[in-house]
Amino acid sequence: MLILPKRHLVLENDKKTNPSALNEKAGISPPEIISSAVAKNIQKFRNSQPTSKELIDGILSGNITALSRAITLVESTNPDHLIKANEVINACLSHANKSVRIGITGVPGVGKSTFIEAFGKHLTNLGKKVAVLAVDPSSTISHGSILGDKTRMEELVKDPNAYIRPSASGETLGGVARKTRETISLCEACGFDTIIIETVGVGQSETAVHSMVDFFLLLKIAGAGDELQGIKRGIMEMADAIVINKADGDNIKKAKLAKTEFNRALHLFPAKKSGWIPTTASCSALTKEGISEVWQTIEKFLAQTKENDYFYKKRSEQNEYWMLETINEQLKLNFFNNPEIQKLLDSTKKAVQNGETSPFAAAQLLLKTYFK
Amino acid sequence: MLILPKRHLVLENDKKTNPSALNEKAGISPPEIISSAVAKNIQKFRNSQPTSKELIDGILSGNITALSRAITLVESTNPDHLIKANEVINACLSHANKSVRIGITGVPGVGKSTFIEAFGKHLTNLGKKVAVLAVDPSSTISHGSILGDKTRMEELVKDPNAYIRPSASGETLGGVARKTRETISLCEACGFDTIIIETVGVGQSETAVHSMVDFFLLLKIAGAGDELQGIKRGIMEMADAIVINKADGDNIKKAKLAKTEFNRALHLFPAKKSGWIPTTASCSALTKEGISEVWQTIEKFLAQTKENDYFYKKRSEQNEYWMLETINEQLKLNFFNNPEIQKLLDSTKKAVQNGETSPFAAAQLLLKTYFK
Repeated sequence: MLILPKRHLVLENDKKTNPSALNEKAGISPPEIISSAVAKNIQKFRNSQPTSKELIDGILSGNITALSRAITLVESTNPDHLIKANEVINACLSHANKSVRIGITGVPGVGKSTFIEAFGKHLTNLGKKVAVLAVDPSSTISHGSILGDKTRMEELVKDPNAYIRPSASGETLGGVARKTRETISLCEACGFDTIIIETVGVGQSETAVHSMVDFFLLLKIAGAGDELQGIKRGIMEMADAIVINKADGDNIKKAKLAKTEFNRALHLFPAKKSGWIPTTASCSALTKEGISEVWQTIEKFLAQTKENDYFYKKRSEQNEYWMLETINEQLKLNFFNNPEIQKLLDSTKKAVQNGETSPFAAAQLLLKTYFK
Repeated sequence: MLILPKRHLVLENDKKTNPSALNEKAGISPPEIISSAVAKNIQKFRNSQPTSKELIDGILSGNITALSRAITLVESTNPDHLIKANEVINACLSHANKSVRIGITGVPGVGKSTFIEAFGKHLTNLGKKVAVLAVDPSSTISHGSILGDKTRMEELVKDPNAYIRPSASGETLGGVARKTRETISLCEACGFDTIIIETVGVGQSETAVHSMVDFFLLLKIAGAGDELQGIKRGIMEMADAIVINKADGDNIKKAKLAKTEFNRALHLFPAKKSGWIPTTASCSALTKEGISEVWQTIEKFLAQTKENDYFYKKRSEQNEYWMLETINEQLKLNFFNNPEIQKLLDSTKKAVQNGETSPFAAAQLLLKTYFK
């Protein structure tokens, strides 16, 4: 993100008291110390920076460029951008919320990208508008390990009714997840009625994704026997459906066996609050076998949970959750970015780790510094 | 906790400017508006309120009364008590940490109390000093559902080498857990070398307990087939050992079967960072069969994890975790107890739940109010 140089602002102010003799438009007069190339950049930046209203109008009329720009604001760390982002989101809100939000997880290798490509194409063929987002806290380090390579969804990326956006980056999972959650609202206001949120099935990010979707799908492949291995139990417990991918060719038999095994495992879990009994299925993103059935399952789930009101209750709870999460995240950021705290933190941590001071006394010391 | 009436302090100050003609000791002169009974109570309270040094000396010499008083300070909501508690804990710290901390969980009905009684007696017979604590956030509502009824541990409660303390109460799990974690340090400084922390196996409290113990034991009973049911998968994943209790009489066969089944289930979980392979065992708190084996397992675990340094690394990580948790808890408390926030919170929450405002805009509004 290009940051407006302060010098430029100062020059504008100077002009008010010392009006230039030259008849130039305010804001674009190139001061001597700034090269014309830089000035041109600034000019372009100023001209191209749309107002909140322009963004809102753009999003509501289905303009993808406006959507992308608004998401960039959401992902920015600039406080001004945050204010603008909130304006846009709030204005979009009454137009959002008419979608279904689907979380998809699975360890690397299960074929998430090819599944989402086949599933997404199936949905756009049904006349749906599909947005694919991602929550991947590791993307900060790996520069976008999932969805970074859009070429893995060749078909979908060319589809005018699909919008693919890589994971936001950020220092904390909370931050990344919050940004994705905000992006959902923008996509919905832009007319996307099916939101797919991808995540890697290895850590805490599933819990975050679970708290922003209506339906949670766990993607698996038939393995060599230890079907339950390699994925945290908590993730299986969250799943509304387990889909065994790559059920084609020699794999069909193995996939069938795995399906039975997962089905048995799922029945050992306590009943879900939604009243929904998790299902298992197999499919092939390659042959498209079973893809339409996955969507039928989701439709059944939606009908059932809208009928028993669980769908709406969960969304309302999720909204409250994200408010509290955002507050919590900001409180922590404010605390740990405090210069006084930053000076003390390392040595205090070390003393605590070595057992020289109690964790509680250390916390009180830092809190006292912060609140004074 | 008796609170010193403010009136009393005022009278003391008055005396400085208007010295009484009566030759009475400062601080115990009964003013007319306070009945002599109340004054006596205050006097007793003042006399009996030990200093930090007295508490520290008491704890370090193994005085149970001093220990109990210090724990009461830890559990108090009075900020002055908190300061004093931290003083005491910090002074005790270098004398603590030489214990083993064992978490025990299991759903109601598995016989946690009888198990802890039998297990605790076994340990005191071995010459150990055993402290039994609890983390039960529900105790605020149920007035101490676990460990409230000490008569369920008749033998242990009479044992001079055992100390039993019911769960602290508090509004949040975080608060309850923190208080228990602090209590551990005090018990250790008081000479208790084996700390047992009990919790009910139904919720989030296991994660909190897991983050304060060296060894996590899941207690089960042989059921009617669905052995894995009724307990969250995440809890099984935390367990270093699963012990099937009530393996006596007709139950012995069933317990053996359950043991096999759990053993299979445990092997499906990913390997533990500790390098320890979780074990299963059966025992009877009634016949004492298998109780000594549980302790042998723990000793083996300790030897192995001290050998590979995991024991010390985990404790150091736990210390840091509790520092950060305490900070987080206090930041939230300070925020939600802010009078301005309290005025706004309900209506903001409702607007968010109903989708009238975005969770993020609502959070920003509250944060702006708080930080201004």
